Amino acid sequence: MRVGVLTGGGDCPGLNAVIRGLVRKGVQEYGYEFVGYRDGWRGPLEGDTVPLDIPAVRGILPRGGTILGSSRTNPLKEADGVRRIKENLAKHEVDALVTIGGEDTLGVAARLCDEYGISCVGVPKTIDNDLSATDYTFGFDTAVGIATEAIDRLHTTAESHMRVLVVEVMGRHAGWIALHSGLAGGANVILIPEQRFDVDQVCAWVTSRFKASYAPIVVIAEGAMPKDGEAVLKDGTLDSFGHVRLSGVGEWLAKEIESRTGKEARTTVLGHVQRGGTPSAFDRWLATRFGLHAIDAVRDGDFGKMVALQGTDIVRVPIAEATAKLKTVDPKLYEEVGVFFG
Amino acid sequence: MRVGVLTGGGDCPGLNAVIRGLVRKGVQEYGYEFVGYRDGWRGPLEGDTVPLDIPAVRGILPRGGTILGSSRTNPLKEADGVRRIKENLAKHEVDALVTIGGEDTLGVAARLCDEYGISCVGVPKTIDNDLSATDYTFGFDTAVGIATEAIDRLHTTAESHMRVLVVEVMGRHAGWIALHSGLAGGANVILIPEQRFDVDQVCAWVTSRFKASYAPIVVIAEGAMPKDGEAVLKDGTLDSFGHVRLSGVGEWLAKEIESRTGKEARTTVLGHVQRGGTPSAFDRWLATRFGLHAIDAVRDGDFGKMVALQGTDIVRVPIAEATAKLKTVDPKLYEEVGVFFG
Amino acid sequence: MRVGVLTGGGDCPGLNAVIRGLVRKGVQEYGYEFVGYRDGWRGPLEGDTVPLDIPAVRGILPRGGTILGSSRTNPLKEADGVRRIKENLAKHEVDALVTIGGEDTLGVAARLCDEYGISCVGVPKTIDNDLSATDYTFGFDTAVGIATEAIDRLHTTAESHMRVLVVEVMGRHAGWIALHSGLAGGANVILIPEQRFDVDQVCAWVTSRFKASYAPIVVIAEGAMPKDGEAVLKDGTLDSFGHVRLSGVGEWLAKEIESRTGKEARTTVLGHVQRGGTPSAFDRWLATRFGLHAIDAVRDGDFGKMVALQGTDIVRVPIAEATAKLKTVDPKLYEEVGVFFG
Amino acid sequence: MRVGVLTGGGDCPGLNAVIRGLVRKGVQEYGYEFVGYRDGWRGPLEGDTVPLDIPAVRGILPRGGTILGSSRTNPLKEADGVRRIKENLAKHEVDALVTIGGEDTLGVAARLCDEYGISCVGVPKTIDNDLSATDYTFGFDTAVGIATEAIDRLHTTAESHMRVLVVEVMGRHAGWIALHSGLAGGANVILIPEQRFDVDQVCAWVTSRFKASYAPIVVIAEGAMPKDGEAVLKDGTLDSFGHVRLSGVGEWLAKEIESRTGKEARTTVLGHVQRGGTPSAFDRWLATRFGLHAIDAVRDGDFGKMVALQGTDIVRVPIAEATAKLKTVDPKLYEEVGVFFG
Repeated sequence: MRVGVLTGGGDCPGLNAVIRGLVRKGVQEYGYEFVGYRDGWRGPLEGDTVPLDIPAVRGILPRGGTILGSSRTNPLKEADGVRRIKENLAKHEVDALVTIGGEDTLGVAARLCDEYGISCVGVPKTIDNDLSATDYTFGFDTAVGIATEAIDRLHTTAESHMRVLVVEVMGRHAGWIALHSGLAGGANVILIPEQRFDVDQVCAWVTSRFKASYAPIVVIAEGAMPKDGEAVLKDGTLDSFGHVRLSGVGEWLAKEIESRTGKEARTTVLGHVQRGGTPSAFDRWLATRFGLHAIDAVRDGDFGKMVALQGTDIVRVPIAEATAKLKTVDPKLYEEVGVFFG
Repeated sequence: MRVGVLTGGGDCPGLNAVIRGLVRKGVQEYGYEFVGYRDGWRGPLEGDTVPLDIPAVRGILPRGGTILGSSRTNPLKEADGVRRIKENLAKHEVDALVTIGGEDTLGVAARLCDEYGISCVGVPKTIDNDLSATDYTFGFDTAVGIATEAIDRLHTTAESHMRVLVVEVMGRHAGWIALHSGLAGGANVILIPEQRFDVDQVCAWVTSRFKASYAPIVVIAEGAMPKDGEAVLKDGTLDSFGHVRLSGVGEWLAKEIESRTGKEARTTVLGHVQRGGTPSAFDRWLATRFGLHAIDAVRDGDFGKMVALQGTDIVRVPIAEATAKLKTVDPKLYEEVGVFFG
Repeated sequence: MRVGVLTGGGDCPGLNAVIRGLVRKGVQEYGYEFVGYRDGWRGPLEGDTVPLDIPAVRGILPRGGTILGSSRTNPLKEADGVRRIKENLAKHEVDALVTIGGEDTLGVAARLCDEYGISCVGVPKTIDNDLSATDYTFGFDTAVGIATEAIDRLHTTAESHMRVLVVEVMGRHAGWIALHSGLAGGANVILIPEQRFDVDQVCAWVTSRFKASYAPIVVIAEGAMPKDGEAVLKDGTLDSFGHVRLSGVGEWLAKEIESRTGKEARTTVLGHVQRGGTPSAFDRWLATRFGLHAIDAVRDGDFGKMVALQGTDIVRVPIAEATAKLKTVDPKLYEEVGVFFG
Repeated sequence: MRVGVLTGGGDCPGLNAVIRGLVRKGVQEYGYEFVGYRDGWRGPLEGDTVPLDIPAVRGILPRGGTILGSSRTNPLKEADGVRRIKENLAKHEVDALVTIGGEDTLGVAARLCDEYGISCVGVPKTIDNDLSATDYTFGFDTAVGIATEAIDRLHTTAESHMRVLVVEVMGRHAGWIALHSGLAGGANVILIPEQRFDVDQVCAWVTSRFKASYAPIVVIAEGAMPKDGEAVLKDGTLDSFGHVRLSGVGEWLAKEIESRTGKEARTTVLGHVQRGGTPSAFDRWLATRFGLHAIDAVRDGDFGKMVALQGTDIVRVPIAEATAKLKTVDPKLYEEVGVFFG
């Protein structure tokens, strides 16, 4: 048995841990051989491979990024894409393909498997934690940890100058990073894409915080939007989901707060720092187990499935279903956390 | 409504987050008053209280330890213990008691509630993660993170000198910390209390690692035991569970490895560092939610219950059941991780 | 003897360590009393004080920010400023004033001491490390550590996507943070305010890095400027030093690199995260020793002096001289580091 | 010109940064070739080499340990050692040798250079910071940072249980790590090898700390010794310097404190964790600059010299002098820090 492996979409701490898990168990327990495909779907499309064996995965567990490289290439949008992939898999004698990626990458895998008979197993990867079939995705815990440490640091600078500090974190369509890091960091306001925010309400929280002689921290997901439609029409853009987005929403909000409350406000945009570097212990554990269970699915011939975390168990779910629905923040959970606002 | 709060047993990162969650929601949403009891069960036993209101819980979220102090006092072993507790609760006009603690502390709460009619709600606390009713307990993720970072560091020193490094981590009766940190840290051998280890097998793994030109890291839980009974009889002691324990098992194993393989071996005992300091973002999230849900249980009059994590939900389970059985490492999970040994 | 203490200007990890050092030694060894002034020069100007004794400084060593608060109030620009300060010092029976701050704060202290006879001792504080009389200032090491960790993380994301990552760090007039964190983080280009950069040269380094199959990291100080004058004239502004500055120079450079090399480029602006949170061990050591030596200067009646680090010794230098000249990066040192560019 | 490089003695974060600095500048600026010798003096003694060029040093800056390996082999104690080294250097066409190491390694380099005409340049390496010719050695800042973070964590566990926590850190003959981490961590007692301690005085400090309602942290260097001679005679051993040492002095002291004060005491021995893992930004900066300046010394033909830090400058000093005298903690500095005891 020869197994191809690829990683697609944005990078995420834990990708290398998945790859290591796959290869260690595949080689040692099942005697499989592996073919690494470079840069996501571009690899099998163009026949671009890298050697993938036990020496290749030594020492990669604590390293961020992906030793296979990544891209957003979509073979279904390429002329002859499916045929070329089939030819290359045949040429490399690859019997099954483990695809590690988000909605886009896995969506392709689901179609290649269901419609074109390519044997695919999926491993979910989204730093935003917004996949409905799994309790958590790897990379999310690392991102939350980095954002929380940043918020911890910003508290002292906010207090020393009695300023508002607005922290913009990742999350275009789901507010999980904002919600977790905002709660863990003791933020006074948390704004998420799932619920349009009222700037006046935010200013009221900010002001009440100052009255208690503390300086407020506002955590805002990059995809959060104000209720006020006009601002949106003027500055917003349509993203790939057809959603209106306000570019630089953190900066925009800081200016609004300044002008409405008269308090100084500063913005910090955490950006790519959240998705790089060594994975947390939690993410190494989760990603490694995803790798171990994905190769078991290959051995079982259980294709078209994706590994997922439910409680403390790794289970398998159909890729197509798993990627069909975004997991957004439940309004009840947001309300639960709201007790700390203001 | 006046609610008493106490923290018992060993300290654990996240205790303050629980207390803050209880008080913030209790005061703001339900208009409750709080009484902090000092040093676990000693507080209600001796009537020793501290003020507990919103100012008292400001800024404590990122702090380790417990602002209430802790102890191992067991009021059921004190003359007249129950009567004295009842008197003090009455004197302080306390209607319900939130008890945050491990098996011992919660066991007392269960009996006080079930047998003596004191209204108790439990919040589980064990850094060892060995409580069967909950997927995780807070503090565990922090401990695993600290141990993993230490193992990361030890790799380089092992490689530079081609030595064996034995790392002893917490875990008297359950190997969760060893298993998670050992996997996350890329250890070559992980030894847990649930399965007696064979020193010759350990030496075989160590030797095979050297053959691949790498230096081995052995992670061992403090409660792990060799199969070899004689060593145990000579050096072991009986702990409070009536289990035989080998004091300093890491040091003992390092010496055995040296004498059997001829390779230099060094031991690091992580000790109390694992349970102190600021909680991880995961633990702050979990502990805060435990606090929020525990006060909801008080409001619902749902006494004799303990909050627990199942998947991503916080649920309530009977305290008595929850503490009846130790959650140990499933042999299948240990076998799953075993692919990385050697 | 009663000693007033104030902290002025931007916050900086280590301020609390200085305050603790002053108070512990002043009270215990010399029997002094202390008066804390709130928010920099605003405190003595308006007579706004906080109690400052041994209990007040307990536990503040690891905390960022300043328990005294800070501001940029300049009493020399206030009507009657000097008279009001003198009156308040007399009213509070303050015999000497320890002023902890940067150029502005210490410049005021120098004039109040030299021209108006107020007994001042200075402690230098600038996160940018740009004071000529001292080898290092506290807060700088913490900022460099935070920036280095961020660069470490960005490497993996750059490699995974073969993108250019531009990291903008603090440093308006001196490139110390960029130079140290860029070197420590293994950046491929480091741009500092002291030397105008040539965008084509930067692009050549970026391109050569890609040729070696690695993705480049460009570290740029916020005050760095391109040689190309037109861009500056169009987008730049004059700062308080009368220097032309290009707001958002990191973002600007990323766009230039994209358009000239055809490679994707992303920007991360570290911002306030660099100056908040717990100080590094180095900064705690340095700041504490500054505090201990500043109170010795008070005891010696050695006013108009500032404590400074030379090698491993703490010495005293005249405040006026110490703040007269900015310590910028020596061209030779920049050239030394340049061996790692490209 | 061909340059040999070796690293000897205990590992130390920053060794790889030195090697990278040497090679990058040597190859790029001077066109040199390099020969890596494996495992300290064993390499040139046995002719055991590894390739050392620019690809070999890519990515090693943030990694602890040494890519060259290390050992304590002393060629002057080997039969024919000098002749064999000379033969191997000739065979590999090595013109100069850069030796990175502590007292022992550099002592050999000094003699080989001065007595046998081998062209050596030294780079000092001691995690204990106990070399008199340089303000700091790399690795020390990393060790202090790790120890400080551990002490930070132990505070909360000490407070929660009102226990004494004794932390044993590295430092056999010099107390620098204990002094810096103890001060930075807010320890209440710091004990160093330079000054025998009085257990009763330690107990008095411990007791006074409890009276202020805080729990004490005692930081002790592994080489610290009590005044009480009898204990020493019973448990102590002679180390390689001929000094009496008390093995496990932290554990010993904890027991003494328990029996004399009646308070619970616990010990944490930080051990090898202090010397492994990624170097701090400070150490990467210092080590890199040592590498850059050492290769300049080779180019200048300035043999028998060692690079050293004086203030912010890298200078050259004769190896023989530099290693002749241990840099111990000045009693005045210890007294300065003593204001925080108790």
